[in-house]
Amino acid sequence: MRVGVLTGGGDCPGLNAVIRAVVRKGIEVHGWDFVGFRNGWNGPLTGDSRPLGLNDVEDILTRGGTILRSSRTNPYKVDGGVDKIKQVLADQGVDALIAIGGEDTLGVAKKLTDDGVGVVGVPKTIDNDLGATDYTFGFDTAVSIATEAIDRLHTTAESHHRALVVEVMGRHAGWIALHSGLAGGASVILVPEKHFNVDQVVSWVERRFEKEYAPIIVVAEGALPEGGEEKLLTGEKDAFGHVRLGGIGTWLADEIASRTGKESRAVVLGHVQRGGTPTAYDRVLATRFGLHAVDAVADGDFGVMVALKGTDIVRVKLSEATAELKTVPVERYEEAEVFFG
Amino acid sequence: MRVGVLTGGGDCPGLNAVIRAVVRKGIEVHGWDFVGFRNGWNGPLTGDSRPLGLNDVEDILTRGGTILRSSRTNPYKVDGGVDKIKQVLADQGVDALIAIGGEDTLGVAKKLTDDGVGVVGVPKTIDNDLGATDYTFGFDTAVSIATEAIDRLHTTAESHHRALVVEVMGRHAGWIALHSGLAGGASVILVPEKHFNVDQVVSWVERRFEKEYAPIIVVAEGALPEGGEEKLLTGEKDAFGHVRLGGIGTWLADEIASRTGKESRAVVLGHVQRGGTPTAYDRVLATRFGLHAVDAVADGDFGVMVALKGTDIVRVKLSEATAELKTVPVERYEEAEVFFG
Amino acid sequence: MRVGVLTGGGDCPGLNAVIRAVVRKGIEVHGWDFVGFRNGWNGPLTGDSRPLGLNDVEDILTRGGTILRSSRTNPYKVDGGVDKIKQVLADQGVDALIAIGGEDTLGVAKKLTDDGVGVVGVPKTIDNDLGATDYTFGFDTAVSIATEAIDRLHTTAESHHRALVVEVMGRHAGWIALHSGLAGGASVILVPEKHFNVDQVVSWVERRFEKEYAPIIVVAEGALPEGGEEKLLTGEKDAFGHVRLGGIGTWLADEIASRTGKESRAVVLGHVQRGGTPTAYDRVLATRFGLHAVDAVADGDFGVMVALKGTDIVRVKLSEATAELKTVPVERYEEAEVFFG
Amino acid sequence: MRVGVLTGGGDCPGLNAVIRAVVRKGIEVHGWDFVGFRNGWNGPLTGDSRPLGLNDVEDILTRGGTILRSSRTNPYKVDGGVDKIKQVLADQGVDALIAIGGEDTLGVAKKLTDDGVGVVGVPKTIDNDLGATDYTFGFDTAVSIATEAIDRLHTTAESHHRALVVEVMGRHAGWIALHSGLAGGASVILVPEKHFNVDQVVSWVERRFEKEYAPIIVVAEGALPEGGEEKLLTGEKDAFGHVRLGGIGTWLADEIASRTGKESRAVVLGHVQRGGTPTAYDRVLATRFGLHAVDAVADGDFGVMVALKGTDIVRVKLSEATAELKTVPVERYEEAEVFFG
Repeated sequence: MRVGVLTGGGDCPGLNAVIRAVVRKGIEVHGWDFVGFRNGWNGPLTGDSRPLGLNDVEDILTRGGTILRSSRTNPYKVDGGVDKIKQVLADQGVDALIAIGGEDTLGVAKKLTDDGVGVVGVPKTIDNDLGATDYTFGFDTAVSIATEAIDRLHTTAESHHRALVVEVMGRHAGWIALHSGLAGGASVILVPEKHFNVDQVVSWVERRFEKEYAPIIVVAEGALPEGGEEKLLTGEKDAFGHVRLGGIGTWLADEIASRTGKESRAVVLGHVQRGGTPTAYDRVLATRFGLHAVDAVADGDFGVMVALKGTDIVRVKLSEATAELKTVPVERYEEAEVFFG
Repeated sequence: MRVGVLTGGGDCPGLNAVIRAVVRKGIEVHGWDFVGFRNGWNGPLTGDSRPLGLNDVEDILTRGGTILRSSRTNPYKVDGGVDKIKQVLADQGVDALIAIGGEDTLGVAKKLTDDGVGVVGVPKTIDNDLGATDYTFGFDTAVSIATEAIDRLHTTAESHHRALVVEVMGRHAGWIALHSGLAGGASVILVPEKHFNVDQVVSWVERRFEKEYAPIIVVAEGALPEGGEEKLLTGEKDAFGHVRLGGIGTWLADEIASRTGKESRAVVLGHVQRGGTPTAYDRVLATRFGLHAVDAVADGDFGVMVALKGTDIVRVKLSEATAELKTVPVERYEEAEVFFG
Repeated sequence: MRVGVLTGGGDCPGLNAVIRAVVRKGIEVHGWDFVGFRNGWNGPLTGDSRPLGLNDVEDILTRGGTILRSSRTNPYKVDGGVDKIKQVLADQGVDALIAIGGEDTLGVAKKLTDDGVGVVGVPKTIDNDLGATDYTFGFDTAVSIATEAIDRLHTTAESHHRALVVEVMGRHAGWIALHSGLAGGASVILVPEKHFNVDQVVSWVERRFEKEYAPIIVVAEGALPEGGEEKLLTGEKDAFGHVRLGGIGTWLADEIASRTGKESRAVVLGHVQRGGTPTAYDRVLATRFGLHAVDAVADGDFGVMVALKGTDIVRVKLSEATAELKTVPVERYEEAEVFFG
Repeated sequence: MRVGVLTGGGDCPGLNAVIRAVVRKGIEVHGWDFVGFRNGWNGPLTGDSRPLGLNDVEDILTRGGTILRSSRTNPYKVDGGVDKIKQVLADQGVDALIAIGGEDTLGVAKKLTDDGVGVVGVPKTIDNDLGATDYTFGFDTAVSIATEAIDRLHTTAESHHRALVVEVMGRHAGWIALHSGLAGGASVILVPEKHFNVDQVVSWVERRFEKEYAPIIVVAEGALPEGGEEKLLTGEKDAFGHVRLGGIGTWLADEIASRTGKESRAVVLGHVQRGGTPTAYDRVLATRFGLHAVDAVADGDFGVMVALKGTDIVRVKLSEATAELKTVPVERYEEAEVFFG
């Protein structure tokens, strides 16, 4: 039995932990061979692969990123993509694939299974927005990094009587903002799921200043003010197209400053949130996902994704897994509001 | 409405986060008064209390330990203890209690409820051994600290061709050993749930050395060798009664050294695992527990404990909560064995 | 004897450690009284002060920011400022001042000494650009935070074949860029002291990609391209005047992307660098500065600043201390070039 | 030109950073070849070596330990050791050696230079006890790790009204205890340089409890009570000979408990202090040491060691470098006493 492994989409702490667990269990328990396809779906499309043995995965558990590199290539947008993949798998003698990735990567995995290729998926999304699993690895690391930054910003804010707006990842789902805001003791948390009222934000900020503390506003990159969508979405871009860098965080710091007369600054955490060594939580989750993905392959149970339900790793249909975005429910957001201001 | 809060048992990162959430929601949403009872059940026994207002909990989210301090006092082992508590609550006008603690503290909470005092429990155990909740706060922090130590020890072990035995907390349940061992890439993990065979441990250690790596053996303080129970349990104590300090970790390092001829050292992580600022994960969990404990009090739903089930906070009967110890299931342990050696 | 303490300028990890050491030694060894003036020189100008006793400084060693808060108020720009200060000191019975701050704060300290007020200075600059001391506290913390961010970004860059530009603090001196770039294994380090040649930067970046690694470019916020000064300095500001947020880092990422055809992203670390708990190094240095500042006051040795020379804390004249900016010497920068590309 | 590199003695964070800097500068600037000798002086004794190219040092900057591994082999205690080394160097065409190590390693380096082998030394001692340099790499990392542990222990101590004794490294010099104790806000610091009076320690501990705080006592492993030397030195060993594990820390916790009636616990940090990724400070220092060692070799300036003096890297004679142990001066220790109790 020869199994191919690939990682697709944005990188995420824990990818290497999955790869290590897959290779270790596949070899030690089942005696399989492994090939690592490089750069996401580009690997099986072009045949770009490397052998993956025990030595290759010895030292990678704690490393961020992915030793297989990644891409956003979609074989269904490439002419004859599926046939090319089938040919490469046949040429390299690969019997099954383990695809580690987010919505896009798993969407391809689903279609390929329908088209006769045996694929098991491992969910990966730093944003925690995949519906079929309680959590994915990478999310805890991102929340930890954002929380540590918020911890640091509190004292700066207070020493200077400043409002600090911290823009975190989350284009469509506010999980990182919600969790890091709760963990960091934010005075306001803003998420894409609920358009915010700037007057309300300003009143929380002023209430916070009145208590002799300085407000920290945690805002997801995809959060938007009520009625203010167009303004931001059509905002000027710099030469490199970075709307987001001067995006909602900076815009909001400006609004707060002009409405309260207090100094306000924005910090955009950016890529720091998704790199580096995974937290212990993410290493354990990624490792368990890898071990269970091997079980699914061993069972010939393709078209599924491993998922966390409570403390168990289960299998869910890939069709179900990618059906809808998991956003922050209104009750979770409202629960947090007790800490605002 | 006036609500009392107390923390009992061993300290645990996240206790202050619970207290903050309780006070914040109780005051902001319900307009309650709060008193903090000091030193666990000793507080309501003796009337040792302090007011708890919003200002008292402003700065405590990130702090380890508990601002209410703790003790292991059991009012059911004190003459007339329950009556004293009832009198103190009556004198101080306290209508309900929120008790944050482990098995012992919650056991008292259950009995007090049966005896007519309204108590809501919040589970706390760094060892993750309470059956009625998926996780408790403090566990993630302990695992993170142990994992960071293991990360550091790898390079020392390899530079010196040494075996390193890391003794972590877990007298009856091996959760910290299992998770930190998985996250830290341990070569062997030993837990109280399964008596280990020293020959087997030695063969994993030797296999690891053969690969040109150095073994890290993570051992829970309560793990025991097959047939070796008495030996360890009746072992000499130092003047201060610290059997554990020279406990299983040191014993095992000695065995490995004498059987393999390789240098072996033990590191006993000890109290470092339970102190200091909680991880983001634990802060969120502790905060949510606190918010939901207030809901239970508001509902007059006493004799329950808040618990994590998947991603939800639910309520379980205190009787159920303390019914049995949650140990590492055999399949979780066997799953990890693929990484041994 | 009654001594006033104040903190001026931008906040910096270690300010509280100085305050603690000053108060502790002043009270324990000399039996002095202390008043803390709030908000930098604004405190002695307006009389805004608080008593500072042992209890006030018990818990502050590890906290970032300053319990005395800060400002950039300059009493020499206030009508009758010096007389107001003298009056406040007389009214409050303050015999001497310990002023903790950077170039501006210490410049005022110098003038006040000339005008007859007894002041001892403690140097503080996160940028490490004060000439009369080997290092100041806060710098090590800033370098550590920037280095940790760079560590995290390496794996993201490599997983995606991207160039990542990390903009760190340093408007006039490139010390943070130099040290964090060396510590983080940057492929290019750019400092304000030497205008950079974009073609040269691009060739280092391309060389790095050729080695199958991804380049990290660390750039001080004040670094500028050769001949490109005006362009950046007259660049568009957003509504809030944040030129820097879309400053040199973003500009450079854009240039690299358009010239190499590789994805390039900028990360602006911003205020995260100056907040939060100080490193052990900074806590020790700040503590020693505080202890020696008390010695200077006890000796009646005013108009001086404490400074680090090798492993010793010495005193230097304030006039000398603020004479010139300490920039990165050309040989230190050239030494680092061996790691470029 | 072909240069050999080796690392001797106990491992220390930063060794790999030195190796990387040496190889990078030697190749990029001078075009030299490098061989890495394995396991300290055992490498040139037996010819056990590996080539060291740019690729070998690409990824090692952040890694603790040493890719060349280490030993305590002393060729002057091996029959014909020096001749063997000369033969190996001749056989492998090695023109000069860079030896990274502590007192023992550098002592051999000195003798070999006297015996006609060109050696440049790089000082390494986690204990900071080498007289000829202000600091060595590894020390800052050890202090940071110990300080982080002390930070964590404060809240545990206070929650339980306990005294906690933290035993840190330092057999002959108390630098780690002094710096981590200052940085961690210890209530008592005990160093090998000054035998301590137990009554005095107990009175500091009691004073601390009276203030409603819990004492943290930081003790170097080599610290001893007045008149109590024999007792400890002849103390029972466990089967593995670990006197230290139940050493001064445990002994002192016992004394404190029995004399104050308060719970007291000991934590022995052990090997965790010397492993893992170096701090930014240590990476910069190690890197600069490596760069300057190459300069010395290029100048043919053998028999010297690179050293830190203030902010400069200088060269000192190896004879001078190993002349005497640098211990904590009495005035540095007394300065810290203001924080005791």
